[in-house]
Amino acid sequence: MSADQVTDIINNPIRVGILGFGGLGQAAARVLAPKSEMLLVAAADQKGYAYNPAGLNRDRCVTTYQSQGSLGYLESEGILSDRSIAELITKADKVEGYFLALPNLPNTFMASVAQQFINSGWRGVLVDAIKRTSAIEQLLAMKNELQAAGITYMTGCGATPGLLTAAAALAAQSYAEIHSVKITFGVGIANWEAYRATIREDIAHLPGYTVEKAQSMTDAEVEALLDRTDGLLKLENMEHADDIMLEIAGICGRDRVTVGGIVDTRNPKKPLSTNVQITGRTFEGKISTHTFTLGDETSMAANVCGPAFGYLKAGVNLHRRGIYGLFTAAEIMPQFVK
Amino acid sequence: MSADQVTDIINNPIRVGILGFGGLGQAAARVLAPKSEMLLVAAADQKGYAYNPAGLNRDRCVTTYQSQGSLGYLESEGILSDRSIAELITKADKVEGYFLALPNLPNTFMASVAQQFINSGWRGVLVDAIKRTSAIEQLLAMKNELQAAGITYMTGCGATPGLLTAAAALAAQSYAEIHSVKITFGVGIANWEAYRATIREDIAHLPGYTVEKAQSMTDAEVEALLDRTDGLLKLENMEHADDIMLEIAGICGRDRVTVGGIVDTRNPKKPLSTNVQITGRTFEGKISTHTFTLGDETSMAANVCGPAFGYLKAGVNLHRRGIYGLFTAAEIMPQFVK
Repeated sequence: MSADQVTDIINNPIRVGILGFGGLGQAAARVLAPKSEMLLVAAADQKGYAYNPAGLNRDRCVTTYQSQGSLGYLESEGILSDRSIAELITKADKVEGYFLALPNLPNTFMASVAQQFINSGWRGVLVDAIKRTSAIEQLLAMKNELQAAGITYMTGCGATPGLLTAAAALAAQSYAEIHSVKITFGVGIANWEAYRATIREDIAHLPGYTVEKAQSMTDAEVEALLDRTDGLLKLENMEHADDIMLEIAGICGRDRVTVGGIVDTRNPKKPLSTNVQITGRTFEGKISTHTFTLGDETSMAANVCGPAFGYLKAGVNLHRRGIYGLFTAAEIMPQFVK
Repeated sequence: MSADQVTDIINNPIRVGILGFGGLGQAAARVLAPKSEMLLVAAADQKGYAYNPAGLNRDRCVTTYQSQGSLGYLESEGILSDRSIAELITKADKVEGYFLALPNLPNTFMASVAQQFINSGWRGVLVDAIKRTSAIEQLLAMKNELQAAGITYMTGCGATPGLLTAAAALAAQSYAEIHSVKITFGVGIANWEAYRATIREDIAHLPGYTVEKAQSMTDAEVEALLDRTDGLLKLENMEHADDIMLEIAGICGRDRVTVGGIVDTRNPKKPLSTNVQITGRTFEGKISTHTFTLGDETSMAANVCGPAFGYLKAGVNLHRRGIYGLFTAAEIMPQFVK
């Protein structure tokens, strides 16, 4: 991007929307608040939405959502609706890009949202921080449709998949062949109830659980499960889209990518430092491992929302050049949002 | 990139050239040899060049260069010339991209090569692994000219700047503000005489030396210097283009980027693990540090040449979409070359 384009963005902030206003959506709004290059103008939850092309006030959005349960109650800007996403898409004609901060429950939900965007005739950038391989496969099947609709869809653009997948793609450059990509994450949250949907997505990865079973658990049932594990969720060989993303980028077969981690639901300190290890063979025949390690003080929200908006900015640059379709975090360099 | 585009590249390998055939150029030829997506068709040194649109044999090139001192002696394909680069550019009309594996001595040399490409009317992708900030500043001044000429120039695309700069750009995504980017490299080479030009570039960074002074040193003088330091070159606060590249990408001011390292010229084992530490403040106000560490078994050649061709492939994709101008390793995701 040229200096002129940077100046252009600063003078004309990218108008963005956030779909989903749980823990992740609220954190995303907080990430955006101090930025001059992006302006939050639209947000939706299950029961309503709010739109103001001059910008939404983040604190009012959070207060209203937390006290009344929906952005639809936001004074003057909120509208209650059981078709909140569809209505917002149609109404919010100034939005250049959306961060889909939605839990992908059921597992076809994100693809159905993408379909709503296609059907609406809206053109712009969509970014998700989706986790499951099978969810990205659904979006892959829609690639040509997204391209024809003039939508630049950036998928798997959170922390993992996302930041760590991109680090793996970058690290692969030193090698002639990649033998393994091993992602190990540590997540510490003081209070799981602030991330109800995310925790249920994690539980769905445990042996004996499915997405449906996890989704149908009451808070009391989640609490009982966590009591039995001292608040820890140990996850191994998770279905994580890092695998398909690295395969699509031509880096290695998906069978060489493994994702696991430990989530501590009762401690904000991470039980281990999140990292990705990329092992391969160099052109001289040496076997070696590059490692990318996240600082423990960076939260899940920082590592998901930062990249999501970085990829949104990169997506807007692609979109402005007329480049549409489906892209993953392993293919595009995210851009820093000031 | 779509699966169709990938198939297209496999069936029609990208025809590439290498300018400069010292240690780095020869390693680059070796990196390319097993790849199906790229084909080495052109190479030049100071005294001559070789071109074969059906592909050059890497072993013959290396043997000829090492035994006779120039690719110009290559049987049937070689031509001796004291205008080797200019002649090759004009003659090698099938080359889509060049890796400029040239020592940037004098410090204006790379920019003068770029100017030769512009003047020749050649259109395609150029990649350098240039080190100095001031050298990239010269190329920046040529940005519009490169764009008008239909050249996609990828600068600073080796290891550092290059791979580590890109890792810093990626890591920055977790933060609202970047406080420091600290690159520390360890290089171990068994025999410095295989990298005569590179070692002189390193010496130029030492206190009391300049590019001109280092360039004019005889091998005996270099040897005497290394005898005094037990073969170690300790480099601090080096003028390294990582700083301007991260500044252009909007990540942080160049004063927040530092580069230093230790080069052991008598031991292939690295004196320390090359790494980049990115420290910043998250949106919640936490200070933290992400770290990207290269495996010790990866050589300088692997960490420079791999990224160089990864950025060349990414550059070819930009070029095919009609996107020209100057880009750095911090802005574009390199693509894996199979």
